[in-house]
Amino acid sequence: MAKSAKWLTPSEESAWRKYIVASRRLAEALDEDLSAHGLSLSDYEILVHLSDAKDRSLRMSDLADKTILSRSRLSHRIKYMEGKGWVERQKCDSDKRGTWAVMTTKGWNAIVKAAPDHVTSIRNRFIDQISKADQANIATAFEKVEKTLRNEKPAT
Amino acid sequence: MAKSAKWLTPSEESAWRKYIVASRRLAEALDEDLSAHGLSLSDYEILVHLSDAKDRSLRMSDLADKTILSRSRLSHRIKYMEGKGWVERQKCDSDKRGTWAVMTTKGWNAIVKAAPDHVTSIRNRFIDQISKADQANIATAFEKVEKTLRNEKPAT
Repeated sequence: MAKSAKWLTPSEESAWRKYIVASRRLAEALDEDLSAHGLSLSDYEILVHLSDAKDRSLRMSDLADKTILSRSRLSHRIKYMEGKGWVERQKCDSDKRGTWAVMTTKGWNAIVKAAPDHVTSIRNRFIDQISKADQANIATAFEKVEKTLRNEKPAT
Repeated sequence: MAKSAKWLTPSEESAWRKYIVASRRLAEALDEDLSAHGLSLSDYEILVHLSDAKDRSLRMSDLADKTILSRSRLSHRIKYMEGKGWVERQKCDSDKRGTWAVMTTKGWNAIVKAAPDHVTSIRNRFIDQISKADQANIATAFEKVEKTLRNEKPAT
């Protein structure tokens, strides 16, 4: 455990603070926009990954990994979506590695209905606020951040 | 409610996806790093805002605003921190506008102890992954995003 640290310079501190504050406010705003469709941002991401998957089905552990949700948080959201009739949980006889989440036609219809509003939110609140050059910079920078997070052990 | 949308172009989609995936993974990693100090990233932010405030005290409504936490989520975290002896809740006789959160010396010591590890996490996981130019671009871009979110009504 580090007992001293290389503190952030003013410009580093500015990048970090501006990013963290905007990123929280953005997540909150997108959640609020999606709530008109009975969805949170996490719910929307779950449905996106299921709709992209073969047979609109994913093992719960793979879905947790793709959505970067804890198993307990994912179970909670899947239970909610089961209640809505959007997703079913199935045990597969030939696969001992646990439960699958399967998107229903109703779930497909829910995401198709929410998608235009959600894309409009992303555009208004994020994409159209930043220049084309910034979009490219952000893609490159965050790809590096994500790749390191995926490959590295905890920092402390 | 929009029934059609201006869909994202491939480069816009790439910026959005890379940002949202990295930003979730980063929040999760920082939370995990801070858990060694019995703190979440939100808890840390609460303590930062209290330590910056006059008399290390803030009205709960102002603290919710600064940390971008819902009132119920903030109450939950403050209750946890009261249990740790880091924060006290106080009613102010001369101020009818509700409860104040006051950081204790123990709370101050907790953030002083956690800060070096937290800064090391931010540096390893974010700042040192991106170039100086990217840091400046990110500061500018996210400042614009945040400013619009603060000033605008919901998009849909």
